[in-house]
Amino acid sequence: MEQFVPRQKLWLEHGGKLVMSDYRLRLLQLIAETGSLAQAANAMGLSYRRAWGKVKELEANLGMQLVQSEVGGAGGGHTALSPEARELVAAYGRFLERMTAALNQAYAEELGTLASAPAERAPR
Amino acid sequence: MEQFVPRQKLWLEHGGKLVMSDYRLRLLQLIAETGSLAQAANAMGLSYRRAWGKVKELEANLGMQLVQSEVGGAGGGHTALSPEARELVAAYGRFLERMTAALNQAYAEELGTLASAPAERAPR
Repeated sequence: MEQFVPRQKLWLEHGGKLVMSDYRLRLLQLIAETGSLAQAANAMGLSYRRAWGKVKELEANLGMQLVQSEVGGAGGGHTALSPEARELVAAYGRFLERMTAALNQAYAEELGTLASAPAERAPR
Repeated sequence: MEQFVPRQKLWLEHGGKLVMSDYRLRLLQLIAETGSLAQAANAMGLSYRRAWGKVKELEANLGMQLVQSEVGGAGGGHTALSPEARELVAAYGRFLERMTAALNQAYAEELGTLASAPAERAPR
């Protein structure tokens, strides 16, 4: 038998509602990177209205302000993550990194040897 | 903000196909516990035919024999897990336990303090 590939999906719930996931993290990261909700929406293939709705829904479910918008000025409006959102994105990123490491280690130690065992036992 | 609840879904793929999941583990565990594919199917709300199809599909995707059937005898037929399947079920169970522990630890250390921070910072 060849090796298996371990897979995991992680998310956070709050009050029974989904408040963080790969998708939501990506949206927040893109807002932080581009400084623009319009560009973040575009990069995810979402309309501006839909991306805005996602952010507002997430803010309501988290009970936390996620974005700070500045209208106008040179070059038009700018959207930045709030300090709490930056902290959440960074912490969730560290959480994901640790869980990826844990996945690989638990797989290697519990299942990796099993997956390779039949080949080792095969007649030569 | 109240605490978040970290959630995790785990599975194994092999050759791009799903070969282990909570659902598949439960089916194999029920076969082992009841010694009967019919009882295992019933407990999962599956028809016997569908449960049998699931087992055969899983065997094909894993390249491993999972069940051993003995027809007839006192009390009728009996279905048991193969030695390899018992080993896989046990190893996957240990893998899940470790990942649950890892989830709780990574959450507590990376996100648990963040989630409780706003309340600590709230005015008294």
